[in-house]
Amino acid sequence: MKSRLTQLCNAMIGVGLSLGLATSAGAAQSLQDVMKARGLTEKDLLAAAKTYTPTGGRDEYLAFSSGGQSGQIFVYGIPSMRILKYIGVFTPEPWQGYGFDDESKAVLAEGRIDGKDILYGDTHHPALSEENGDYDGKYLFINDKANPRIAVIDLRDFETKQIVVNPFFKSEHGGTFVTPNTEYVMEATQYAAPYADDFVPLSKFNEVYRGGLAYWKFDKKEGRIKPEQSFVFELPPYSQDLSDAGKGPSYGWGFTNSFCTERYVGGIERGRPPFEAGCSQKDTDFLHITNWKKAAELVKAGKVKKQKGMYLIPIKQAVKEGLLYLIPEPKSPHGVDVTPDGTKIIVSGKLDTHVSVFSFKKIMDAIQHKKFVGRDPYGIPILSMKDTLHTQVALGLGPLHTQMDAKPCIAYTSLYVDSQIAKWDYCKGKVLDKVNIHYNVGHLMAMEGDTAHPDGKYLVSLNKLAIDRFNPVGPLHPQNHQLIDISGDKMQLLYDMPVPLGEPHYVVAIKADKLKPEIRYRSGWNSRANSRSKWRTRAGREKIVRNGNHIDVYGTVIRSHITPEIIEAKVGDTVSLHLTNLERAEDETHGFALRGQNVNLSIEPGKTVSATFKADKAGVFPYYCTEFCSALHLEMQGYLLVAPKNYQAAGVSMSEGQTYTKADYEKQVKTNLETQAVIDSVVAFITSRNYKDFKPVVALVEDATDQLGFADEAKKKAEEYAKKGDYHNATLWAGQWWQYQVKTADLGLRAKTYLEEHGAKVVK
Amino acid sequence: MKSRLTQLCNAMIGVGLSLGLATSAGAAQSLQDVMKARGLTEKDLLAAAKTYTPTGGRDEYLAFSSGGQSGQIFVYGIPSMRILKYIGVFTPEPWQGYGFDDESKAVLAEGRIDGKDILYGDTHHPALSEENGDYDGKYLFINDKANPRIAVIDLRDFETKQIVVNPFFKSEHGGTFVTPNTEYVMEATQYAAPYADDFVPLSKFNEVYRGGLAYWKFDKKEGRIKPEQSFVFELPPYSQDLSDAGKGPSYGWGFTNSFCTERYVGGIERGRPPFEAGCSQKDTDFLHITNWKKAAELVKAGKVKKQKGMYLIPIKQAVKEGLLYLIPEPKSPHGVDVTPDGTKIIVSGKLDTHVSVFSFKKIMDAIQHKKFVGRDPYGIPILSMKDTLHTQVALGLGPLHTQMDAKPCIAYTSLYVDSQIAKWDYCKGKVLDKVNIHYNVGHLMAMEGDTAHPDGKYLVSLNKLAIDRFNPVGPLHPQNHQLIDISGDKMQLLYDMPVPLGEPHYVVAIKADKLKPEIRYRSGWNSRANSRSKWRTRAGREKIVRNGNHIDVYGTVIRSHITPEIIEAKVGDTVSLHLTNLERAEDETHGFALRGQNVNLSIEPGKTVSATFKADKAGVFPYYCTEFCSALHLEMQGYLLVAPKNYQAAGVSMSEGQTYTKADYEKQVKTNLETQAVIDSVVAFITSRNYKDFKPVVALVEDATDQLGFADEAKKKAEEYAKKGDYHNATLWAGQWWQYQVKTADLGLRAKTYLEEHGAKVVK
Repeated sequence: MKSRLTQLCNAMIGVGLSLGLATSAGAAQSLQDVMKARGLTEKDLLAAAKTYTPTGGRDEYLAFSSGGQSGQIFVYGIPSMRILKYIGVFTPEPWQGYGFDDESKAVLAEGRIDGKDILYGDTHHPALSEENGDYDGKYLFINDKANPRIAVIDLRDFETKQIVVNPFFKSEHGGTFVTPNTEYVMEATQYAAPYADDFVPLSKFNEVYRGGLAYWKFDKKEGRIKPEQSFVFELPPYSQDLSDAGKGPSYGWGFTNSFCTERYVGGIERGRPPFEAGCSQKDTDFLHITNWKKAAELVKAGKVKKQKGMYLIPIKQAVKEGLLYLIPEPKSPHGVDVTPDGTKIIVSGKLDTHVSVFSFKKIMDAIQHKKFVGRDPYGIPILSMKDTLHTQVALGLGPLHTQMDAKPCIAYTSLYVDSQIAKWDYCKGKVLDKVNIHYNVGHLMAMEGDTAHPDGKYLVSLNKLAIDRFNPVGPLHPQNHQLIDISGDKMQLLYDMPVPLGEPHYVVAIKADKLKPEIRYRSGWNSRANSRSKWRTRAGREKIVRNGNHIDVYGTVIRSHITPEIIEAKVGDTVSLHLTNLERAEDETHGFALRGQNVNLSIEPGKTVSATFKADKAGVFPYYCTEFCSALHLEMQGYLLVAPKNYQAAGVSMSEGQTYTKADYEKQVKTNLETQAVIDSVVAFITSRNYKDFKPVVALVEDATDQLGFADEAKKKAEEYAKKGDYHNATLWAGQWWQYQVKTADLGLRAKTYLEEHGAKVVK
Repeated sequence: MKSRLTQLCNAMIGVGLSLGLATSAGAAQSLQDVMKARGLTEKDLLAAAKTYTPTGGRDEYLAFSSGGQSGQIFVYGIPSMRILKYIGVFTPEPWQGYGFDDESKAVLAEGRIDGKDILYGDTHHPALSEENGDYDGKYLFINDKANPRIAVIDLRDFETKQIVVNPFFKSEHGGTFVTPNTEYVMEATQYAAPYADDFVPLSKFNEVYRGGLAYWKFDKKEGRIKPEQSFVFELPPYSQDLSDAGKGPSYGWGFTNSFCTERYVGGIERGRPPFEAGCSQKDTDFLHITNWKKAAELVKAGKVKKQKGMYLIPIKQAVKEGLLYLIPEPKSPHGVDVTPDGTKIIVSGKLDTHVSVFSFKKIMDAIQHKKFVGRDPYGIPILSMKDTLHTQVALGLGPLHTQMDAKPCIAYTSLYVDSQIAKWDYCKGKVLDKVNIHYNVGHLMAMEGDTAHPDGKYLVSLNKLAIDRFNPVGPLHPQNHQLIDISGDKMQLLYDMPVPLGEPHYVVAIKADKLKPEIRYRSGWNSRANSRSKWRTRAGREKIVRNGNHIDVYGTVIRSHITPEIIEAKVGDTVSLHLTNLERAEDETHGFALRGQNVNLSIEPGKTVSATFKADKAGVFPYYCTEFCSALHLEMQGYLLVAPKNYQAAGVSMSEGQTYTKADYEKQVKTNLETQAVIDSVVAFITSRNYKDFKPVVALVEDATDQLGFADEAKKKAEEYAKKGDYHNATLWAGQWWQYQVKTADLGLRAKTYLEEHGAKVVK
């Protein structure tokens, strides 16, 4: 084998050369040949150009999609339609350590139902926090339909920080939606049930079963929902569905639609017609109108009673105070959407072909003049549909959800049965265009399409069926999110994105430059509590503290070792691992997995996480870093040794199979000095260029400087041992010194390549 | 509102018209404008054309990627790089009901460690089943590094069917790899540990800690691993790593590399150098060579003893029988790869710049002539590196994993430290090309690149760091799988795919047409056991059977109702739900979620799944279908009512809020007759075309015919009730009749659109 120096030099020289060749390759290939071979049309090529994002490119929008039954949120870029991240929300997710470290277990524990850990969620409607009706890029909310809960995700680090359980509801679908300054997060029931946690027979359905609408108070500064400041509207046992908050002139009001106002209770197993028949027999259901601003004032004035830790506004009180009204709406709707200017409210009944555009002004007029056509069985005043409609437009079969364009009066509505999207004018009541989608679209999503200032440009059709769109992957299919260009007069289908996990219900998309995520935590950070961890550890301060049967391990992780490498416990001990990632470099996450104990952690730079478990069995339990963090990542390992209760060791005793001599030491030192010369030449290359003009290179140089510092420390240890004549340890520390040099070279080479690729200039 | 008939007709006529317009839209837009606006080069456009896959298009290859710490497998298409599916393997996944239904819980229970449910896995190396060294598209295997286990996935339905736990190992990385006819699945230890499940101090590391290599017997007909026919090679306490099976001339042999043959045991917390130093001090580690064919014969001849249910071949026996040899290999390698013709074995040491190409013939010559350079401390004969090398090639820094091209002698090797891929000739020992990747590549994957007949064309670089490649999503980054075109002389980077969940370690890709996944199950199928379920139920045979405190619910799901809709239990009952999906239509999966009980099921067409839980609290528990299966999906609901133990009901009593009259009935019937006329016109359209030439349309027509049949049944019920003068129930059943008509219309419209879009012709 050649000397390491020669190898390193050759490899480094190779970088620039090979790249030069690679860049020019393929240019001669004919686009027409490729199109012919792949059967692409001119239209396909245009769509490809509109969506393809080359390496290092950025997407214009980030979409946050409900992950459906996966219980998670996933994030994708638009227009590239590449999925960037899954975020654990209601379901434990080991990659993120979510539900595996003590800190995130505490978040999931907030979501217990009847004291039971719930290991999934059925996420439906994500909502981004708003300021003046526009997204501010700070927080994301998502609900769990199956077990009525709301989660809060912080967009600084894309982590779930809080889960609140609705103490009244037994089911909800219509959450989350936010008021224009994120004062409140709206959540409505779906299937009516008793508010009490007791059994109530269906014979008391009308009297005791209830719907409801919660307004959860959100503290934007703290980033947490405040249940004790939140209030719930008691509502009749209709199946309330989606909501939207008024804005502009309609600020202070909320709109919530419903289905099954028939209050049918099923019973197909007894020969009765099923719910689907009994819940769709009437021609209309009810749009619920609530005055949250006035309700909040009532709460503030001490006029609303608390139950189960929240304020509960009974129907009677709501009616008396003028907080609650109903308007008939075409039956079985899904989605109520306020126009950007806040003047109109759009509802589609899935079993009607029309979208109905209500006028907020007309609604207010009717309320002001107490122009009611009657009251529902619970005494709620009903406004007339005719009095409050701006217009109705026949769009097609199964109209469902509406999103707004940047262009005035332009909206898009999904047509479930038709498998189409309709583009129409809600001011003039005119259909403008239709496009086929594949297949059976539920919600729609335009860029910032539910804000006061929609961005237009793209529309995503959330198709519930994919059927034949993709390569077959078994009986359970992906869904299909189709990207549509809405920048021109006619809609153009651009891209089919398979959804590989869960049934997304709704998505929100925000302009990417509104997000400012962090790349590292402050050192020793408990990210879930958003505070310094009491378990943080600094380099060199690692320790194992025993307190009776409890062991606290204050450890650290850094390229490429875990401290401690050996942990000794006894059967019956409770072990709490507290690991701090000492890295500062972007993307230098370390993982930690331990056999047989459900310990699997993700430790991003700066983070401190803990994992507590009972050492209930004697044995040997290897642990290791699970993220390929460095060349010697596989060697980033350790052992938990659990001894029997009565075991008495004569001190720590270890045994490995290799010893090293003076000759080994000298050989290693020679290699290291040669390596240093190469590193110096790379450093000379970098510093002779205007590298400070390149932010990524500055970060690499900082990291490399750190690594060289570590190399120096190891070098000193090696030399100390050599001085003492302990050439075994001197050799090993000299090896460690070289390992840090390799890490330095890795970074230096990346920096050098970056400068070469980005046209850095020689400076004096 | 207009009559439903008019609405339906307008909507249907609209389909063709609007599509015509939509198709021509955008064509006038300039490709140059788009390229300019998005900053795309000619090279980018070519890459876009090579990867963009229009709606309904198919990928040429399907890639099966380890999901790393997510514990799952994910499937993506090449060249589109779209993720098609996540498959739950070691981690419960609610969307698939994996770990939530009794059937899949039984699979996960096979993977318990020390009797404990393990809720994650660290998946590493997927392997596809082979026949004669080539992929046969039948099964997929994957390992869990953290808790040494192997899972079997059936590619008929992409579901995990079996998990086996290695009874000896406490850690493994180097699994799975298969022998050329999938006779065996190979799995090697990573971190040495005692074979016993007891505590052994590190002072006995050399004597008692052991590595190992398992050959798991696979029954291809049954699709299951047979532990009782499997055998394990006891190996020294080196950190064994990856393996590959010989083929062609090397058939019958296996190759396994290793690191840390220094047998270092760490101890940084005690001032000792860390594992990374102690495990990389020697210049070489050992390539392990095992003769599995001869070992299998020995097992068959009854010459190997069983322990813990498997055959265990002690080192001594292996040496004596000539089953086990070692060759020094450049230190800290990752990946050993046999060339397609089986004549050469390629190993790269991560801390060396060379790839080493060993000659199988030279290895056999040395073995035959007992040309050993010594024995390791465990008595295993060591062959000389020099004697057995075909060639060594200096490739660059951090060479890691090698994949083979379709072109003879051409291989690709990842360079971790250089962040590059090298293309080279392993016959002539010559470097041909290099390309930069982003960043720090681990494994590589070429199309069928580890088989006897690689397909070439594309290469995927599995980069462990993404850093700046994508929009930022917080401190925890996606990884970056980069697609590279290898069809020409020079490699060309085509696409960056973010990996949104977990750290994939390795990927395998198979020609898509080799896979023949099913689209539905045989009716009443237990997919995990691959047998008819004893809990299956046919339409009309639904029942609830009580046996003491145990309730078995034999239910069904179909668009759009669950039978039963009401389930009554008492506190303390154990409830077993058994749900059969009666659908035959592709993609008509129904889900099932129940509040507060961790019941979340996925029921694909034909499948029967069960969920057993204890009704431990009185209350009302709504349940519903979680897949947006039809227009009235939200109404696909029901209630579990858990009454107190002593509750005595006076029969079932239900109450809803609406009653219907003769006028309601007649109105509904009128609507239905009008709707039927429309349906008839669509049927006329379809049957007047050559629809039988279009497979998807034939499937739609079959489904629509089913729905019309159901409509007929509901119609009969409505008419019976009307005859009796019960207009309430008559109206409801007439409504149900109409619901089936809507479902028919949905299908009919999709069929009509398909025929229009695909140029169907009018037939006589």
